[in-house]
This record gives sequence, structure tokens and C-alpha cells, in this order.
Amino acid sequence: MAILPPGVSAESFEAAIREFRGAIGNDWVFTSDDDLYSYRDHFSYIKDQPNELIPSAAVGPDSTEQVQAIVRTANKYKIPLYAISTGKNFAYGGPSPNVRGSVTVDLKRMNRILECDDTRNFALVEPGVSYIDLYRHIQDNNLNVWVDTPDPGWGSLIGNSMDHGIGYTMGFYRDHFGAHTGMEVVLPNGEVMRTGMGALPGSDSWQEYKHGYGPDPAGLFGQGNFGIVTKMGFRLMPAPEHWRNGLISVPKRQDLIPLVEAVNYLSDLSMTGEPWYGSPLGQLMGNTEFREAALSFNEGQMDRQAESAGLHSWQVELQFYGSEGTTLANWEYAKELVARKVPGAHFTDGESLSVPLTREQISNTTGPYPTNMRRNVTQGVPGLGIWYMTGRTDRNPNDWNETHIGLFSLIGRSGEAILKAQQDFADISRRLELPSLFPNAIQTPVNWYQFGFLMGNGFGLGADDSSPAGKIRAAEKLREVLQENAKLGYGDYRAPPMLQDDVAEQYSFNNFVLRRFNETLKDAIDPNGIISPGRAGVWPAPFRSMRGGLRG
Amino acid sequence: MAILPPGVSAESFEAAIREFRGAIGNDWVFTSDDDLYSYRDHFSYIKDQPNELIPSAAVGPDSTEQVQAIVRTANKYKIPLYAISTGKNFAYGGPSPNVRGSVTVDLKRMNRILECDDTRNFALVEPGVSYIDLYRHIQDNNLNVWVDTPDPGWGSLIGNSMDHGIGYTMGFYRDHFGAHTGMEVVLPNGEVMRTGMGALPGSDSWQEYKHGYGPDPAGLFGQGNFGIVTKMGFRLMPAPEHWRNGLISVPKRQDLIPLVEAVNYLSDLSMTGEPWYGSPLGQLMGNTEFREAALSFNEGQMDRQAESAGLHSWQVELQFYGSEGTTLANWEYAKELVARKVPGAHFTDGESLSVPLTREQISNTTGPYPTNMRRNVTQGVPGLGIWYMTGRTDRNPNDWNETHIGLFSLIGRSGEAILKAQQDFADISRRLELPSLFPNAIQTPVNWYQFGFLMGNGFGLGADDSSPAGKIRAAEKLREVLQENAKLGYGDYRAPPMLQDDVAEQYSFNNFVLRRFNETLKDAIDPNGIISPGRAGVWPAPFRSMRGGLRG
Repeated sequence: MAILPPGVSAESFEAAIREFRGAIGNDWVFTSDDDLYSYRDHFSYIKDQPNELIPSAAVGPDSTEQVQAIVRTANKYKIPLYAISTGKNFAYGGPSPNVRGSVTVDLKRMNRILECDDTRNFALVEPGVSYIDLYRHIQDNNLNVWVDTPDPGWGSLIGNSMDHGIGYTMGFYRDHFGAHTGMEVVLPNGEVMRTGMGALPGSDSWQEYKHGYGPDPAGLFGQGNFGIVTKMGFRLMPAPEHWRNGLISVPKRQDLIPLVEAVNYLSDLSMTGEPWYGSPLGQLMGNTEFREAALSFNEGQMDRQAESAGLHSWQVELQFYGSEGTTLANWEYAKELVARKVPGAHFTDGESLSVPLTREQISNTTGPYPTNMRRNVTQGVPGLGIWYMTGRTDRNPNDWNETHIGLFSLIGRSGEAILKAQQDFADISRRLELPSLFPNAIQTPVNWYQFGFLMGNGFGLGADDSSPAGKIRAAEKLREVLQENAKLGYGDYRAPPMLQDDVAEQYSFNNFVLRRFNETLKDAIDPNGIISPGRAGVWPAPFRSMRGGLRG
Repeated sequence: MAILPPGVSAESFEAAIREFRGAIGNDWVFTSDDDLYSYRDHFSYIKDQPNELIPSAAVGPDSTEQVQAIVRTANKYKIPLYAISTGKNFAYGGPSPNVRGSVTVDLKRMNRILECDDTRNFALVEPGVSYIDLYRHIQDNNLNVWVDTPDPGWGSLIGNSMDHGIGYTMGFYRDHFGAHTGMEVVLPNGEVMRTGMGALPGSDSWQEYKHGYGPDPAGLFGQGNFGIVTKMGFRLMPAPEHWRNGLISVPKRQDLIPLVEAVNYLSDLSMTGEPWYGSPLGQLMGNTEFREAALSFNEGQMDRQAESAGLHSWQVELQFYGSEGTTLANWEYAKELVARKVPGAHFTDGESLSVPLTREQISNTTGPYPTNMRRNVTQGVPGLGIWYMTGRTDRNPNDWNETHIGLFSLIGRSGEAILKAQQDFADISRRLELPSLFPNAIQTPVNWYQFGFLMGNGFGLGADDSSPAGKIRAAEKLREVLQENAKLGYGDYRAPPMLQDDVAEQYSFNNFVLRRFNETLKDAIDPNGIISPGRAGVWPAPFRSMRGGLRG
């Protein structure tokens, strides 16, 4: 299945491969089908189709200098590159590039933890460093900091932040791109640039002041294609001495509004970690009468049934980080505040644990799934438990739709916005005949980003048909969902490569001026368009005609 | 003193002025010396010199559309524009442009508070909105949020954040650019762009998720010249119910190291607002023996003299935001933590106040200057008290050197870095024969940026000679200080226009690759170079030969 980069002759490609081998060694240039197998998205909707997003080759540099050499060669032969860190974000395309035939630049050999400072509270790492790597380094060296990890801990700090990924501890640290502290980037012309105080030779404050001096282009590299990041700093949360959680529930549907206001207040004063919203009424969805009420948004009926079942309508779990005394004070204050705002609110004390946690406390599996897995990530302990939910475990390996199972759209951070979004997403789901019970009237958003709510939608696509044609239809359906969402003002925050053009279409203000602006910048610094063309819908001039080319 | 923009003929300029008048009305285009008087930097080192950075005209648009019209005209006639919000940041050049003869775009008529939400905790404002304006709006409407204000409250939220300005409440909110939530910008070609979720028409989450989708160019507009910002959102801190402060002191010079570690820890867990470091030993600087010890960094001698005077070497004041109970728990924990790390540490309870503060509490002037003024800003109350320190009050109006009184350089966020920087800056000061007693061995940094320390240096320049020639010599001396600082890895975070090229020279990594990268981007989107050419050392091609032109 040997393929070539678009517009590149076999001779040119061979010459480039020879140069890659010369620059980084024979052992680290991969061209055989066997070697390239691991650089495919095995959950892809277009797996084995002629347009599957697979690379022509892969290269594994070990240093910034080797990345520079690769970029120079790519420029010479006009070969598109696609950089991955660990390439394990299977929910978002894994290692697959935007352009079929790209050369994958696999950075996982560059896995050095260059600094990890637990008094100034930062780390400087290379792209191959995973959350698990950093966690182990911290444990081995008894350092007094935590990692803020996303669900799968095998991911790269740099890769995750580059895709605007998230975590589960205190607000500031959960925004992984926002918590970066400057980066080193190999530019499309092969030069090495450092942002922030990294631009000042010999500076001792690179990881402590990200803005540096003058215009800061760092934001262009997140979900972008302006260079290959080879080093990046991140703020680390100090290890608190104590962790505590607690559960709040409120009786009526409309109580969600004051509940969210109170939690926003606590969150924005940094008194709580990630609020985890849910509804105890999920238990009633097996009850036909209740399900009817929930699917038809019959609020009065839902409240009556909740009351007669003795259940509250909404709940939120909060985590607290600090000392035993401060976490208790914060929790007590949370109770006081919510009680003041919501009559009938109920409070359940959770766990109260000294840090460092014991191994037994970390692996404690009591409590309903996914409480325990979730508890680990709120405690800065990376793992792979999430694959219980979306991975291929003991299920049918053809259950291809276990990943890419849905979309996450931004909604307003209020109870009103949640109640409206439920109806909006349910309407779209019904109109487009999606198979799932969700979205419905008890769905809640995630509050990963401290100041934003992300609400799932487009669930269960294609669950009825996992044939190749069914997968393609499912992908088209997802595109329709994205379009319908955008009409109502909902936009997605990330997507696998095959849907990135479609998400980019949502952001159309003033005839796509933001995208046109970014593409003007892109053309200026990458005239051959070799760095990840098409990423997040930004197409450089030489590849621009490929925009939307994956649509059916 | 009629002047013209560089390279523009009198005829072209007149034609442009006519177009400006047509677009925004006769009353809002200023060309007379009288009208332009307020657009000069009256504290400038080169006041009344032939190269003084003064505009050729000023225009006062009232809407985004009018800004667009101005930009289109400027492009047509190749006239450099320089946008100001309120133009009152007199410590950093006030309204003066980087290029003499620019047309000042004064945005202060665009002063609408478009949204101020105290449940989702943000504001969306135009450039003319000052901290005082927003504070009044919040008071008048009984909203439950605070402003995080810099020292002079008459400044613009947008203008201040565009210059990477700072405030005094909780960590996240103190970084005014970092706390932005997306912006609307008139691009150099006159188009209007919105960043973040603003790129999605009809989005309800513009102010709640700043990254938006794909590469985010927002960082290019801070200390930049890539467009004119016409709207911008900011996160607002919820009004806490209680405010409390406390003072910690530690006896010995080396105790600064564990003190900073403890405070970093508290700060990074969001348990305290801005730490305000100082040294009680300032009282001894009148004592010849102590001053000798301090100027020669004789640590043993300093410790002995401090002990015999019954004084501690260092102190830090902390603020706490929350409820009465949580602020108390945080303060008690701060005491416990520091006591554990620093033998002999001393703790003084400060004030403990319910919010909202009464008018009497706000204007309470007990306590030594500048404690009270400082207390106001830590409580989100904007004012103009800072001008006590640097303004022209009852002093000689020729004391021109009252502003631009020093530089602020980033240093590492540790006690070790402070002690080293004191010596480094003192060495430079001595070598360059600066007149001041500072920097010296009791100087402390400011912790405005949550994760960074800024240390003052270059103090007292030119205090000996306020003649025109003396001012020019003083400016040259500042340039020498900047060069010496950079050799030791210290870089500045902001500067007035006349020193911006010099600060940019500090950031020289890889032959100024960051500046070259930014200039490549600049040329791509502003081929005529009309938006603030030279700002932060970024010169567009048509003006590039002017780089460093202000140097003696």
C-alpha cells in the first residue's frame, strides 16, 4: 500500500527518504506497511477507504536539530509533515494526519524532562513526555507538585495542550494550553524559535512569565500548523496537603440556575476544583412515564416524578485542595452559600484524605463507576481507566464507533444555557434521526475549562451500522450535526482531522475573516505549506484546494 | 509646529484629513497645536527635541465602523496610525506614538460597557472604558463582581491589557492580558475580526472560552501592532464576602528563601492574593554602618545589625479573599506553613472586613503610605493615589524625571534569585554610576504577575540634571542599563515607545528569530505598515529603516 505525498514524484520521495535516513539514522525512518500500521487511526470512519488519512512514511527524530533537518528536507521536496507527540489521542484521530501521504514526525523519542521545579512550580519537557512519565518522575524524586492529567495518562503534555486538552484539578491548571509557560518551536523554515522569556538568552524566568516582550505568537501553535514544538513549559499545581470532596443536590429542575451561579462563584474564587454536574434522575430513565416526560421536556411532570421517587433533579460534586482546615472551610462555605440560594438543597460529605495518598487510597475501587477513575484524575494521578468507557476491551473489535462517539460544543456557563442547550441539541438529534436517548432533559455539561461549559451532543452515531458504508454515512451525519449546532450558535472546541474542516466552517464570522487571517500568516511563514497543512481548517496556498475534500 | 507623517506629502496629508473628516465628522479630527498638546508625552526625555514622538493629527472615532474607515484612508495614503485607549499611562509614554508624525487614533469616545455579567463573571467593553467607569457601573447596578485595577484607575481595561499591565487581587485576575476572553479587532486592511468564540456568529460563549477553534492570534495584539482592538472581554473576580490581610516577617537574610517558597505554594494554590514583599530594614538605611553593610552585601553584618535593632530582615503582606471563615482558615494555614519552614517567623493579624466595604472603610487613611492606597487596589477599588508617588503635584513642574523613574526586569521566582539580582543590579548601577541608593541588599521584587517576579532597577536616572541635554544623557544611560541587564539574563516586560527598540534588543535568541518571525507576519497582514509601526520593536518593511533611530 505504498503511497506518496500529494504532487511528489516517486524519485523525489525516495531522495527525501534518503536524506531523512542520513539525518536521523536508518533505524528511525519507517516506510513499510508493518511499520506504518501504528500510525493509522484504527477507529477512523474511513478506515481502508481510498481517502484514509495515512502517512507515506514516518520519522522519529531524537533532538531539535534532527527535527530541523527533517523540516529542511521536507521544504526541499515539498513534502507535508504531520507531527505527533505520543499519537495516542484515539478519540481525536490518534496519529492520523490531515493530508493523506504526509510524513509523520513522531516525537516520542524526545522524552526528556528538562526541568521540574517544586518550589517555583513548573516543568519544562519535550514532546514525548507523557503525564505518566512526569508523574513517575515526581514520585521518584519526592517532588511536591502534582500533574493535571487528562483521562488517558499516556498522552503527552505538549500534544494534549497543543490540541487544547484539559484536566481535572484546580481551574487554572485544567486549561493545559493556558497553563503553558513558553515554548521552543522549529519553524517551517527550519529555524528554532523560543517564545516568552525564552527569547532572552540566559534568562532564568522562561517558565515564569509567558508573555515575554512584544507580540506573542504562542497561540498560533495551539491547534495550529505554524511549527513543530520541541520544548514547552507548564505550570504545575503544588501538591496540596489535603484533598476533600462533597456532593450537593438540589430538588427541582429550575434549581439548576442558582446552583450553577453558586458554583461559578466558588470556582472563580478558586475555592473548588472541577465541578462535576449530573442528575440523579438518570435512574428514572428506565421508567417509561419519566422518560416520556424527559424527552418531551415536560418540566412539571419531571418535578412531580422526581419528588414521588424521592430523588433530587441535579447534583454537583466538588473537590477541595489545601490543608485539612482550608478544605473544610471551603466545603462548609459551599454548603452555606448553596443553602442560602436553593431551598431544599442537600449536602453529603465525601472523602477527606491527607496527601500524599497511599497506594491503597489511589487504587481504592469502592464507589460506583466512574467515580473512582474520576477521583484519581482529580487527585493528579494519571491512568488509563477511561478506556473502560471508550476503548476496545472485551467487546467486539468491530465496535468501531466506540470512539468519536460524540461532539462537545461550548454553551453559556449558566443554568439557563444548559436548559436551553438540552432542548436545542435534542431537537437537532430528533430532526437528524440520531439513534441515542441523549441529548435529553437531564443532560449536564462538563466544566473542564474553568470558565466554560462543554455539552456533549451527536451521540450514538452509526451505532446501527458498522459497515464501511454505514461509517461513511455516520461521518456525514456528524457533519450535519455540526452545521445545525452552528446555526444555533454552538461551536466545537476540537475534532479529529477528518472533521476539522467541518468544525472550522462553524467559525464563519465576517466571511471567515479569522481563518483568512490565519491563512495569510501561514502563507507568509510556510510558503511550501509543509507543516500540517489543513490542521484545524487552516490550509496553506499550495494545498488550499484540498479544503473540504473529505466531505462526501 | 505642523508636521507630516514620514514620506507623506502635504497634499496627500490634506486629502487624508479631508477623508477623516468625512468619515467621522469635523469635530473629531484634530490638527491644531492646541488640540494636539494633549497627545504628547509631557514627561518625555526628548520633549521639544526635533525627534519628539508627537502626532501629526488625531482622530476620535465613535464606532468600529469609523475605525475601519480611518484604517482604509490610512492605507490609501500610507499614513501610520497609533491607537490609544485613554492615553493616560504616563509612566510608559502616555499617548506618544513610536513614529513621529503618526495620526493618533484616540478611542476614548468608544466607552460603552456592552455586557457586565455577575453570574458568569465577565465584562465586554470598548477601549474607552476605564477601571473607574467599570467600577461605577458595578456600584450603580449593585453587581456582585470586582474590578482588578492597576494603580491609576483612569486607565482603560483594553489599553492596560494591551500593554501587559497588571493589578492587585487574586493571581489569575492580576494578569490583565491573560484574563482577556477574546477580542474584536479592526485589521490593517480595515476588516473586522473576532477571536475565540467571537468567530462563531450568535455564540453565547464568547466571554467564556478564549481559545476558540484553531490557531489563536490574540497574543499578537498584546504589545503588538497587528490591528486596533475595538471590543474585548475580561474575566471578573466575583466580589468576595470578606477581605482580610496579614503580615509575616522573618528574622534573617537567608530566611527569604523558605519564605518565598511558602508564599509561592500558597499563591499557586490560590489561597492568597498578591504577596507584597518588603524589608523592615529600610528604617536602618539612615544608619551609616548599616548602609555600608547593605551596599556591600555584608550579610553577617546586616544580620547582626538587624538583630541588635530588634528588626526582622524581610516581610510579606498577604491578602485573603472569600468568606470570613475561609479567609481565616487560609491565614491560619499561611502562619502554620511559614512557622514550619522559618524559625522565628512573626505574624501580625491585619484587618478583617466584610464586603461590601463602607465608604469610610475605603477612604480610611490610617496606616503608613502607601499602605492605604495599596489596600484600595487589593480590594478592587480604583483610584489615582499612585500619583502621590510619581505625579506632578506640588513639586517643581520641571521635575521631569518623576516618571520613567526606573525599569522592571523579570527575575526568577525564588529567594535565591532575589539575592542574586540585588547584587547584579547593584553592580550594574555602580558600574554605570547611577545616582541612587537602589538597587541594594534590601530591595524586593513585585509579584504582580502570579508566577513572575519583577525587580526594579535603573532608578534615579538623571535626577542630577534636568536640562534637555541631561535628559538625553539619562535616556542613553537607561539604554546602557537595559544592555547590561540582558547580558545577565534579565529582560524588561514593558517600556515607553522611545525605549521599545532597546528592550526588543534584549530578546535576541537565535539572531532575533522571534522578532523576525513577528515582522514576517506583520508584513503579510500590513504591507503598508500603517498600524503602529515600531511598537515593541516590530517594524514593518516600509518603516524598517527607522529601527533604533531614536538612539543617540
